[in-house]
Amino acid sequence: MFINMSRVQQIIDKLSTISAEQGELTRLAFSPEDQIAHNYVVELCQGHNLQIRYDEIGNLFIRKSGTEDHLPVVAFGSHIDSVVNAGKFDGPLGSIGGLEILLQLCEQNIHTRHPLELIIFTCEESSRFNYATLGSKVMSGIANQQKLSHLRDKQGNGLQQALTNIGLDFNKIDQAKRQANEFKCFVELHIEQGPRLENEQKTIGVVTGIAAPIRCIVNIQGQADHSGATAMHYRHDALLGGAELALTVEQAAIDAGHSTVATVGNLTAKPGVMNVVPGYCELLVDIRGIHTGARQSVFTALKQQIEIISKKRGLQIELQLISTDNPILLPDNMIENISRASQELGYSFEMMPSGAGHDAMHMATLCPTGMIFVPSHKGISHNPLEFTEWKDVEAGIKVLQKVVLEQAEVVG
Amino acid sequence: MFINMSRVQQIIDKLSTISAEQGELTRLAFSPEDQIAHNYVVELCQGHNLQIRYDEIGNLFIRKSGTEDHLPVVAFGSHIDSVVNAGKFDGPLGSIGGLEILLQLCEQNIHTRHPLELIIFTCEESSRFNYATLGSKVMSGIANQQKLSHLRDKQGNGLQQALTNIGLDFNKIDQAKRQANEFKCFVELHIEQGPRLENEQKTIGVVTGIAAPIRCIVNIQGQADHSGATAMHYRHDALLGGAELALTVEQAAIDAGHSTVATVGNLTAKPGVMNVVPGYCELLVDIRGIHTGARQSVFTALKQQIEIISKKRGLQIELQLISTDNPILLPDNMIENISRASQELGYSFEMMPSGAGHDAMHMATLCPTGMIFVPSHKGISHNPLEFTEWKDVEAGIKVLQKVVLEQAEVVG
Repeated sequence: MFINMSRVQQIIDKLSTISAEQGELTRLAFSPEDQIAHNYVVELCQGHNLQIRYDEIGNLFIRKSGTEDHLPVVAFGSHIDSVVNAGKFDGPLGSIGGLEILLQLCEQNIHTRHPLELIIFTCEESSRFNYATLGSKVMSGIANQQKLSHLRDKQGNGLQQALTNIGLDFNKIDQAKRQANEFKCFVELHIEQGPRLENEQKTIGVVTGIAAPIRCIVNIQGQADHSGATAMHYRHDALLGGAELALTVEQAAIDAGHSTVATVGNLTAKPGVMNVVPGYCELLVDIRGIHTGARQSVFTALKQQIEIISKKRGLQIELQLISTDNPILLPDNMIENISRASQELGYSFEMMPSGAGHDAMHMATLCPTGMIFVPSHKGISHNPLEFTEWKDVEAGIKVLQKVVLEQAEVVG
Repeated sequence: MFINMSRVQQIIDKLSTISAEQGELTRLAFSPEDQIAHNYVVELCQGHNLQIRYDEIGNLFIRKSGTEDHLPVVAFGSHIDSVVNAGKFDGPLGSIGGLEILLQLCEQNIHTRHPLELIIFTCEESSRFNYATLGSKVMSGIANQQKLSHLRDKQGNGLQQALTNIGLDFNKIDQAKRQANEFKCFVELHIEQGPRLENEQKTIGVVTGIAAPIRCIVNIQGQADHSGATAMHYRHDALLGGAELALTVEQAAIDAGHSTVATVGNLTAKPGVMNVVPGYCELLVDIRGIHTGARQSVFTALKQQIEIISKKRGLQIELQLISTDNPILLPDNMIENISRASQELGYSFEMMPSGAGHDAMHMATLCPTGMIFVPSHKGISHNPLEFTEWKDVEAGIKVLQKVVLEQAEVVG
């Protein structure tokens, strides 16, 4: 079935220019530019027989009715919010790929028994609130109002304020929860964000499971002192405590095996000037894997090292757990559906886990869920150098299209 | 001779409220609040027979003529700019102590053969431009317009802009250079900013030499990648390179001995979010000592480790030398003058080096220079908890007064 690649390319390129900063792509969730991007996608649906709906947390649903519209929905989608200084494919690929599938059905007047829903999840990236996949977590009931009241962005604003700014009511977000029996299945198309497909020279990744993060903030309180007049043995240098913990996190991830990864995404020292021993330090820590035990071993190593370093350096160290998502295995039937579609379309494919978290992870708690990867050049992502060839983008959309239409059952 | 301690205390307390932020003391050089503080000090001189002059870099001179006014000046002073979230004694002690000495002479109608100059040096702290003792460096010819054109503050503004904002002309700053034969001597009174006097239960520190910093910025370029999808062995994590270098700097200072100290005052990672492997990192490094060889060994260790880490982690690391000040030994006659004054006034005293850099370091290249320390509680400085007992403040001012008046030769 036809895919209009020039339209897909044009929309993805246009989205990449909707940004908080000229010359880079920065579109944090709930920001004015995120709203502009949403409005742009909704505009593209005008004149087609598609129903537009936002839920109470800000997820966007673009629905095409089925001929038997009471049947469970065949859903697919991704997100369009971004990290700071992002690449243009992370999120928009699955969102605009899904939109293209709906537009083709409308233009070619093709109908399905099951209704179709393109879901553009809100706040998938953790860059706004140090909290990822917010929209799908609320939709699947994994997060709720009570659990989210502590979220704050870098400016100290809460989720409540962010929702108010776009006309939503924080007190109603629990109404965004959906029921399992509403969905027949969910499929997400995404770039790999790792180098495996490129290294293996495969076009399609059939995702078997999704690694999930443990996220925490480490607060280190030492003592600010004059950097010239304070002898080394009198110091309580919070930055050095943070440096040791960052290296601990790295080594523990290497030791853990099972493709476990761990990252200190930021280290902030205060007062942060040349001539003062840093009295305070904060670390953002993200630990991921599909092997729960291996992942936990990194967290345990961090906790043990906090004990050791706080004693050794005379520091007060607090570990604040932000989120613990469970890694999930995707169901065999969805893995088979995607493999078969790839094979029938003549694309090489590879079974693989996803190192990155995705909204599919939470949708998998509601309904049979599958995930399709296409190659990321050198594995680079969350970076302007993120790149996927357009022929691979097309391959991904075609596999998504085939799986979705088989599940939704084309009529006549 | 009398010192009006209630006036000294009142002025130091008043200065501590002139700040960029309510509830803390932050008075960066050349800022509006720094100007307000200067104007306040100048106002206190009104009605007395004192001459006020600013030089081309912004140093403030408060002069009392001598009966033989052509004789070389007996100078003393300190600074009133501060670090971020500072204590109230670092700088104001020697500045306001010196002012009190001048005010007493005016009020008691006492004259000296030599003219007296209280110098309030501009931009002593490196917190504005990562560059310390700017005013005294320009005054002594150690820095000049050409060497200072690269300076930038955290907002990216240059020294030229900062000077323009307060009505000075960057193109004229070399005219602030003074000649050695203009000065008979210089004496600076300052808090110790270390715990030695308190630990030794001494009131006065007679400074024998001043440690000086090597300062540099380390720029680390790695690769920003998705923190979930990038295996540990594919990463080029700039933050972890920075963490290793920070710990190297610490260990090298411990190994160097000779009271050498070294500090990474700040580590900045970019993009600095939870879900991206940091692609960039910057360190501010300050290495100090009075033993040049020991100090150099830390710098050498840093350079060697940069080689090792850049290869090991696949990082591009640049070391940018910001300043190298020479440690100095203060002349025996000034050490003896201060010791004798302390003894005659009945104060216990201790010979000691200064770990912190001071304007006295550069004045020592122009004329015989001495330095007087008073105790800092627990050695805390560059911190709101900085504390010196008022009786020790008085002791320091009295020793300064005695030395200055002996040098300036009270008439009749």
